Amino acid sequence: MAITLAIDCMGGDHGPQVTLPAAFDFLRQDPTCSVILVGQEGVLRARLAGIAGYETLSTRFSIHHASEVVAMDEPVASALRGKKDSSMRVAVNLVKEGKAHAAVSAGNTGALMAIARFVLKTLPGIDRPAICTVMPSQRGATYVLDLGANVDCTAAHLLQFGIMGAMLASALEHKDRPSVGLLNIGEENIKGNDVVKSAGELLRQSDLNFFGNVEGNDIFKGTTDVVVCDGFVGNVTLKASEGLAQMIASGLKEEFSRSIFTRLAALFALPVLKSFRRRFDHRRYNGASFLGLKGIVVKSHGSADQLAFLSALKKAAEESRQDLPNKIATRMAALLPHLLHVNDPVTGNSNADAVSPAPTL
Amino acid sequence: MAITLAIDCMGGDHGPQVTLPAAFDFLRQDPTCSVILVGQEGVLRARLAGIAGYETLSTRFSIHHASEVVAMDEPVASALRGKKDSSMRVAVNLVKEGKAHAAVSAGNTGALMAIARFVLKTLPGIDRPAICTVMPSQRGATYVLDLGANVDCTAAHLLQFGIMGAMLASALEHKDRPSVGLLNIGEENIKGNDVVKSAGELLRQSDLNFFGNVEGNDIFKGTTDVVVCDGFVGNVTLKASEGLAQMIASGLKEEFSRSIFTRLAALFALPVLKSFRRRFDHRRYNGASFLGLKGIVVKSHGSADQLAFLSALKKAAEESRQDLPNKIATRMAALLPHLLHVNDPVTGNSNADAVSPAPTL
Repeated sequence: MAITLAIDCMGGDHGPQVTLPAAFDFLRQDPTCSVILVGQEGVLRARLAGIAGYETLSTRFSIHHASEVVAMDEPVASALRGKKDSSMRVAVNLVKEGKAHAAVSAGNTGALMAIARFVLKTLPGIDRPAICTVMPSQRGATYVLDLGANVDCTAAHLLQFGIMGAMLASALEHKDRPSVGLLNIGEENIKGNDVVKSAGELLRQSDLNFFGNVEGNDIFKGTTDVVVCDGFVGNVTLKASEGLAQMIASGLKEEFSRSIFTRLAALFALPVLKSFRRRFDHRRYNGASFLGLKGIVVKSHGSADQLAFLSALKKAAEESRQDLPNKIATRMAALLPHLLHVNDPVTGNSNADAVSPAPTL
Repeated sequence: MAITLAIDCMGGDHGPQVTLPAAFDFLRQDPTCSVILVGQEGVLRARLAGIAGYETLSTRFSIHHASEVVAMDEPVASALRGKKDSSMRVAVNLVKEGKAHAAVSAGNTGALMAIARFVLKTLPGIDRPAICTVMPSQRGATYVLDLGANVDCTAAHLLQFGIMGAMLASALEHKDRPSVGLLNIGEENIKGNDVVKSAGELLRQSDLNFFGNVEGNDIFKGTTDVVVCDGFVGNVTLKASEGLAQMIASGLKEEFSRSIFTRLAALFALPVLKSFRRRFDHRRYNGASFLGLKGIVVKSHGSADQLAFLSALKKAAEESRQDLPNKIATRMAALLPHLLHVNDPVTGNSNADAVSPAPTL
């Protein structure tokens, strides 16, 4: 299926220097796709000249001028209300207008979420969109959500996250009934705070393939395909994991460069260490999906390099092929009448909710 | 200073097989200390025979019979009310009676916390005890609390955790004014949920060396000496980190045993990998401190081996030497009149609170 992506080329720590070459890598790898490069036309055209053979792909890309850029540390309100012609906003608008299947940006997470929510609106039955990314596990990959869009969640929100996460895992991993775990501090049903305990009830009553409670280590064990938690816990866990991985990597580097002997050992170990690194390469996992919206938005890590940004583009294309928002909407519609019978019913669509200050990923 | 530890010799996955040899290692390393070995006398005496030269230390150890054992998966209520002569309960009683400076157990975390709280009571000004452990960081060590004793916290609780954590870091790291960070999903004061925002206010107004908000990765960067969070977030973060470290370790092992070539590389890299492993050896960090009680209790990891259990014993001895509970009480007393002027005053001592189901560490 031919997919068109709207790419915010100005976002991220590196802007077009990374986004543009990644966009062309994507076009070369996926001959059915096309891209709309959104950003300041002069800047983009200048950068284009440096990309070998870009002319041969001229039927599959276009430049869409957007005069403004949302800064990485810009307050959400200023990005949402003050910059209506930002590359980020215009990329999301293109999805809303049906000109692109999905928008991808490496820009400010909070601003992107606010814009996506304002422009696209949430799906029926979904109170709040969630951010989901994949973490490597001993058995493959674990989809974890929410990662910071929602700091205060009700049990019904956590149930919605479970449904959205299962739909995403199903779309990207091609699994029929992905298993869903509820992040908690013990396996027993009596563990956790009231919200988590009620969420467990709702998930058990749903038709999801609900495994039960999982603990922090289960994310990396790969106990379930999906792990559901509130955005505070998810964000802290994601960042702590990044911090630990970084500490271990730099610790290994230090040990191997301690003396002439350890440097020699490093030479021998290099191919192994490289293959190890490839295995857990976070760039392969780059791209957080904004779920629960009437459209597809994928957020790349701000510091993504070309390979990492390419991963985010591929993810957006696959979600588009799988028609993810419609699948979530269908599932929610099937679930809604059932949920009216439980204690903590899913409330209606509430786009009026204030957007919570979202963290940078 | 001569310290006496009461050791629950029956607790943990391995019981006396690990706790007894570790106790004698401790006695040999610290000639001023003595221990009370608590457990089923017959079992302990039989095991004692296997420890070389235990007779030479006979003036520094005694066996205190306790007829019952709390199982690792025993419900808290049954351990607290049904087993008044458990090795765990008796060890804590010895602290209460002033016969030991501190109790150490590798048993069931929830049961130990409930017993410690019931027998020892909390210090004036402390609503709830917290569990604190140290995590390795790029700059040394980070003290993180709470790790699971309190799943629902108010801002005042988080302030109390900050004070207790600072006192512990000061006692064990011999730092004058350890820095304290508040775990959040962004650095700015506007980030996080209401509880965390109010806690930030309280911490800023306190006389602690408060750094401000920190994020998950700051734990391993070592941005602050102490990181404060509620028990749900702390527990998930701790376990996720354990899970990630395990995944990385087994990933490295797999890569190095893939073929004859990689095995050869492993031979060369072995000394480096060993020194790397030593550096982050979790056994050196074993021992979670129960803070805020009128007495010292240290909880060892259930699966601790001899070296790890020894670390927990050393930690208990150092907290005893530093008279940690009195230091926390003094600090709380100095802070209390000041806190009466802020919005969210620290409420009085409330030992009547139900003990929340605590996780296994």
